[in-house]
Amino acid sequence: MGALEELCNSHPRVLEEVAKLQLPKGYQIRNDPWIYGTDDPNEKRPLVQFFMYVLAGDGHSESNHYSLPLKFSPVFEAYTNKFVRIDYLPGGFDEKTTPTQPWQKVPCVEYHPDLNNETIPRDVKPLLISQPEGPSFKVEGSKVTWQGWEFRVSSSAREGFAVYDVNFKGRQVFYRISLSEMTVPYGDPRAPYHRKQAFDLGDVGFGVTGNHLNLGCDCLGVIKYMDGYAVHPNGEPSVIPNTICMHEQDDGLLYKHLNYRTNNAVVARKREFVVQTIATVANYEYIINLKFVTDGSIDIETRATGILSTMPIDEDVTVPWGTIVGPNVMAAYHQHILSFRIDPAIDGHKNSVVYDDVVKLPKDDKLNPFGIGFVTERKFVEKAGHIDQSPFTNRQYKIINENKINPISKNPVGYKIMMPARQMILADPDSFNVRRAKYATEQVWVTKYRDHELYAAGEFTNQSQNDTGLGVWANGIDPVRNEDLVVWATMGFTHIPRVEDFPVMPVETHNIHLVPFNFFDKNPALDIPQANNNFNKSILAKVDTKSEPSACCKTNL
Amino acid sequence: MGALEELCNSHPRVLEEVAKLQLPKGYQIRNDPWIYGTDDPNEKRPLVQFFMYVLAGDGHSESNHYSLPLKFSPVFEAYTNKFVRIDYLPGGFDEKTTPTQPWQKVPCVEYHPDLNNETIPRDVKPLLISQPEGPSFKVEGSKVTWQGWEFRVSSSAREGFAVYDVNFKGRQVFYRISLSEMTVPYGDPRAPYHRKQAFDLGDVGFGVTGNHLNLGCDCLGVIKYMDGYAVHPNGEPSVIPNTICMHEQDDGLLYKHLNYRTNNAVVARKREFVVQTIATVANYEYIINLKFVTDGSIDIETRATGILSTMPIDEDVTVPWGTIVGPNVMAAYHQHILSFRIDPAIDGHKNSVVYDDVVKLPKDDKLNPFGIGFVTERKFVEKAGHIDQSPFTNRQYKIINENKINPISKNPVGYKIMMPARQMILADPDSFNVRRAKYATEQVWVTKYRDHELYAAGEFTNQSQNDTGLGVWANGIDPVRNEDLVVWATMGFTHIPRVEDFPVMPVETHNIHLVPFNFFDKNPALDIPQANNNFNKSILAKVDTKSEPSACCKTNL
Ligand SMILES: [Cu+2]
Ligand SMILES: [Cu+2]
Repeated sequence: MGALEELCNSHPRVLEEVAKLQLPKGYQIRNDPWIYGTDDPNEKRPLVQFFMYVLAGDGHSESNHYSLPLKFSPVFEAYTNKFVRIDYLPGGFDEKTTPTQPWQKVPCVEYHPDLNNETIPRDVKPLLISQPEGPSFKVEGSKVTWQGWEFRVSSSAREGFAVYDVNFKGRQVFYRISLSEMTVPYGDPRAPYHRKQAFDLGDVGFGVTGNHLNLGCDCLGVIKYMDGYAVHPNGEPSVIPNTICMHEQDDGLLYKHLNYRTNNAVVARKREFVVQTIATVANYEYIINLKFVTDGSIDIETRATGILSTMPIDEDVTVPWGTIVGPNVMAAYHQHILSFRIDPAIDGHKNSVVYDDVVKLPKDDKLNPFGIGFVTERKFVEKAGHIDQSPFTNRQYKIINENKINPISKNPVGYKIMMPARQMILADPDSFNVRRAKYATEQVWVTKYRDHELYAAGEFTNQSQNDTGLGVWANGIDPVRNEDLVVWATMGFTHIPRVEDFPVMPVETHNIHLVPFNFFDKNPALDIPQANNNFNKSILAKVDTKSEPSACCKTNL
Repeated sequence: MGALEELCNSHPRVLEEVAKLQLPKGYQIRNDPWIYGTDDPNEKRPLVQFFMYVLAGDGHSESNHYSLPLKFSPVFEAYTNKFVRIDYLPGGFDEKTTPTQPWQKVPCVEYHPDLNNETIPRDVKPLLISQPEGPSFKVEGSKVTWQGWEFRVSSSAREGFAVYDVNFKGRQVFYRISLSEMTVPYGDPRAPYHRKQAFDLGDVGFGVTGNHLNLGCDCLGVIKYMDGYAVHPNGEPSVIPNTICMHEQDDGLLYKHLNYRTNNAVVARKREFVVQTIATVANYEYIINLKFVTDGSIDIETRATGILSTMPIDEDVTVPWGTIVGPNVMAAYHQHILSFRIDPAIDGHKNSVVYDDVVKLPKDDKLNPFGIGFVTERKFVEKAGHIDQSPFTNRQYKIINENKINPISKNPVGYKIMMPARQMILADPDSFNVRRAKYATEQVWVTKYRDHELYAAGEFTNQSQNDTGLGVWANGIDPVRNEDLVVWATMGFTHIPRVEDFPVMPVETHNIHLVPFNFFDKNPALDIPQANNNFNKSILAKVDTKSEPSACCKTNL
């Protein structure tokens, strides 16, 4: 990236534009190299576009250039480093652009503590997490053993990490779980923004942009780190140190029942084992947490943070496709559409996918005279394809093993996939955005397992013109019932930026849960020791500074 | 409850039925008194029905009677204690019942550690949460101050607790937030199960059934407790000790950005302040957590746990409205439909409710030639009523203050309500289930503020025939734009029991987030000190028992 940035910033044509800005003393130029995207089927050159920014902060390296976007965007040919052209960026409602003008000084919205003018830091007291007897997990090479769970963790230059060979209480549950792709299409229709569609795995890679994680910052408690590996442009392998962290955490109560007759309670805490990685894709950060829970469930969590990709906007202009997040800076609406590849092995590799809707039982004088009955209706996925979302019928997606009947419930064992219904990709079906990312049009896909089918939009996404992943594999032909199959869960969120997302964005968190459904013959967490304070050593807070009459005696406010 | 149970169990007609069971030695009878529900507009007597169970475990008080339901259900008149009749319960697919037979011995699925046969407890190491410098919060009477938040907590016999006068960083945000009602209708159409529709607040009360919370069990860390108050049947006030607990917790990362050029990062941890109560409504437990976050957001979390309400089922029978969760025991499908009352004060009491949909921009040769644009469309709620859900347009509900314009984004300040789209009540629109709980038909309601309008289904729900709450107040007449208004958020989940939910259910967790949306002029959490390990004191785990060749060098599994 450094070489590319330098190429652009030192090119005579770029310097010529920069000169026109007549930047005041103490201000410099910075650029973000960007994926070029696709808008022309005849464009075969490998291209890079650059978004240009003013660097304020009197040269402070951590000044937030995203707050000061400029209105020109150089385009170069990659590898040959040839200058192609300069695109000019609109500042008003339409596509009209203007020649580069002297820069109008506006305040920079800074995030770094050196610069952000937050002079009264909040008074936060330490909250320490310790495990005096050591953690409950074991790691042997890539193999993790914890609380009935056994699995392997593998770093991946493209995916960040994958877990595989996942067993719980001695039974196979998943063969491999990984993030498979993420596309980020923007909704600003004005050229050249129409080309803003990143594929953060295929174009960039979550492993190669993986952060070096730090104790007490990214990970709290007693932490085990793993390195990742990537390949240098020169072909040599390189290490990404400590890019995966693993630890245990408490997440409140797992179950409780109080017998009101005797005042005796059973109480178990919810303990989780977290496998975390964080990727920095230029402006954005993505935190991927795979959380293994003591009740046999898995929580796939994505947290988006970092800095919005910004555009210049003229004074006194508003646009219906973006939020003004600072002086003369706009963040366009966009979507983050992630595909998680879930390769199941529910008691073995021959699995089926079903979806269960909950529907009213017809009113019936004999069976349902009061009209209150409801039942589930099950449908099977027979051929490779997708399943529509249907939140209002409480549609639940399940991976089952038809060869293995639960002795209690008397139906096949399975895991359910709990994922909220979401808006999928908004672009027109015939747009490049959609043709390149068919996976982003539906939330649940099922394909037959084949080696090397790992990436939802296909292997090569940079300047691609068509999806060569699920767009091809979900072919309506391959039988997937009682077969070795793969489920692809598309988690999308339409990001309407808020002012509070700037200059650095509080996490937006999205979860997919994989939950045993008639897989065990009872709650598999009954063997967890009951919670007690000899073990947990919690204490009373001494914080009541004043004794006031209790609120309960006041009028009901 | 004890007196009612005794009344039933000692009544000659009940003893007569019990005798017919010819229970083996060591087995006893237990009953659960149940809300009678409504199925007859002419029934004016206050009634109680009893579900009868066998108590196994050789008389152990914690034996799980819900595992051994019996097939008769006595009905009594409340207050007069008059015996009314015995209903007989079906065991097959239809409503056919049989006279009481000698009880067929089946194993009891036990949860209590004394009885559950879990002989190899899991090896869980302690995970301690400590605050050596004390917590970051202060409590003065009912007033809590923490990290820019100020609010009061009030216990409530009906609601459990409410928070009110909620301010963040010196600005009003909410006047009062509380659980307002929960109804639990069951989908089993067979008599007398068609009457199973509890109103857990209106019929029972979340405060009066509030648990005495314990250190290291229900609450981890440094804990502040508050008592609740109720009224004895004799009219005397009674204390429910320690029924609300409050503490701080860490919830991973709040924001991060790494400047890839310099490898410098800003990292802040997400700290939450939790106000928790737990209510035991006979078989079920509900955990209500109100979490205040350092970024100005509030997370309203509900966790359902406890024991399923069960029915007897004959050997070799399955039903489409229930799951067999143990030998001869079935848990019917049902819904939990909660109404949270959110009384906003977004920079004052004159607020408006809007909903924003994200829609495609029409393809247009000039403005949107590539068909990738999308924009938001805003609609206002003008009159008291409801808003439909619309997840596929990414519909977002916002409470805004039209009198207060955000100087950065140039539109009104507000908070958004993030709630997943859910199936609402399944019963027929003309059923008693729906007529009694209109609030359960829609997910977002807006009414004009009026004193004493606190409970979504109305004040009196026990054996009610009509909703006297939102069914009346959401009248399509009251103006609610730029008014003192109340939002009612209905969080529902259709519970299709799994075998793993028995004999005690791992939590099912559901969240509503209240998030500042163009309320502040930037991320309000920039004043949080950056995370570092001098403060957080995390350590490396020494857990690698063996050095294996790294997984990354293997083929891509
Ligand atoms: Cu975003
Ligand atoms: Cu339930």
